[in-house]
Amino acid sequence: MPHQVTLSNPPRNLKLVIEYDGTRYAGWQIQGHKVTRSQGRKSTIQETIEKTLQKIVQEKIRLIASGRTDAGVHALGQVANFKTYSVIPSRKLQKALNSLLPGDIVITKAEEVASDFHSRYAAKSKIYRYLILHRAHPSAFLKERVYFYRYPLNVQLMRREAGAIIGKHDFRSFCASGSGAKSTIRTIKRISIQEACHTPYAIRHKLIVITIEANGFLYNMVRNIIGTLLEIGRGRLPPGSLRSILKAKDRTKAGPTASACGLYLLQVKY
Amino acid sequence: MPHQVTLSNPPRNLKLVIEYDGTRYAGWQIQGHKVTRSQGRKSTIQETIEKTLQKIVQEKIRLIASGRTDAGVHALGQVANFKTYSVIPSRKLQKALNSLLPGDIVITKAEEVASDFHSRYAAKSKIYRYLILHRAHPSAFLKERVYFYRYPLNVQLMRREAGAIIGKHDFRSFCASGSGAKSTIRTIKRISIQEACHTPYAIRHKLIVITIEANGFLYNMVRNIIGTLLEIGRGRLPPGSLRSILKAKDRTKAGPTASACGLYLLQVKY
Repeated sequence: MPHQVTLSNPPRNLKLVIEYDGTRYAGWQIQGHKVTRSQGRKSTIQETIEKTLQKIVQEKIRLIASGRTDAGVHALGQVANFKTYSVIPSRKLQKALNSLLPGDIVITKAEEVASDFHSRYAAKSKIYRYLILHRAHPSAFLKERVYFYRYPLNVQLMRREAGAIIGKHDFRSFCASGSGAKSTIRTIKRISIQEACHTPYAIRHKLIVITIEANGFLYNMVRNIIGTLLEIGRGRLPPGSLRSILKAKDRTKAGPTASACGLYLLQVKY
Repeated sequence: MPHQVTLSNPPRNLKLVIEYDGTRYAGWQIQGHKVTRSQGRKSTIQETIEKTLQKIVQEKIRLIASGRTDAGVHALGQVANFKTYSVIPSRKLQKALNSLLPGDIVITKAEEVASDFHSRYAAKSKIYRYLILHRAHPSAFLKERVYFYRYPLNVQLMRREAGAIIGKHDFRSFCASGSGAKSTIRTIKRISIQEACHTPYAIRHKLIVITIEANGFLYNMVRNIIGTLLEIGRGRLPPGSLRSILKAKDRTKAGPTASACGLYLLQVKY
């Protein structure tokens, strides 16, 4: 797709809102130092979009996202920005991207923003959503997109327990090792646990929908909180565990990390 | 999974309700005479379930479905039955099947039925659903599961026009060649066209949901009706076209066949 290259000077700052099905990808960006090219490594969302952008604008592009997402984690509202000298209108750029990107990555919005807008630094809060298909048999359509959980769960208890993490806390207990975060203090603004009547394909499914908003999240923090809540809901950790694990500030105390496939980066607020 | 084989005599008749994502498959069963093994052919839903069943019950199994579905067509309520001498309780059989089948085929119900129950002959009506994602950009999650349509559509007009096919008619115009049907007369009980607020992944999407119930369907009949309705909605066929095409009894008159990926066999009524 060769374009006539006209340059804008200074560069424009473009913001993308991105939806992706993370199943096929090694995450937004390869995490940490564990990059091995041995077993035919998967590509990342970032490099897939950057390569496509470069084809369109004919210059080297570096995408800055609001944050990384892990392998298998999905996004409905990831935000990333990039600088470009291209003058292609943002609407046209969005169309070109959507026609060249693989079908599991979709640009839902593209707009020009102030030159100092930075997707990560400017983020005021992030909302993650975790979906649990709670029934006897899995779904042929939701595999890799929800966490299938067949065991009994006390959802009311989970809801009561979840309150313990609201507010400003040191979340060290829920932070995976390998995180480079300087501070492990974050503020959780809300957490809600709903049994939603969800209609994928216009068919009813009952899902447990956990929505959590914070000013920022540590590495694996959402999945460690969800994993702990599930252990409480199933009765394998006693009530009060979430609070005591939080207070322990010891990452060996938390429940297991919940599967990536149920997790969605829903929205980044600025 | 070797079972101790205890035989029931006479054989039991077991009925399965099956959900499948048809994306990876060549349909329920290979259609017609076009079977070529040249380009590494895809497997069919039928052979996948039969093979798995045979492993469990340790005998040759032949599944009788309510009808075939084409390559890429999905099912939320396909019905199939089979005879077996195995005495494994239907609940256990369902669990074993779901743990051995690939994730895109799920048995949602298994029960013993009267020995003369036949999934195809006993079917009183079938309900198909067609999903259209009608907006400017596709969805990263619904690719291959809805038909993405970016052009303007007059949905009210489509709804008015659809009424023309309700009742008992000769649907020859909407029947693909290669169908072995003796009669092309069918009775459409209802057709509804809704703009549904659909929530896959607990996120709102606006879908056009077309639901159609008939005592039976000819080969490609639903997809040819939908394809024609879309041409009318887009203004490429004039109002009245559905009625006139129906009356023509000529399969060269119908609009294009709508893509398989939006089609779901929703329910079989007995």
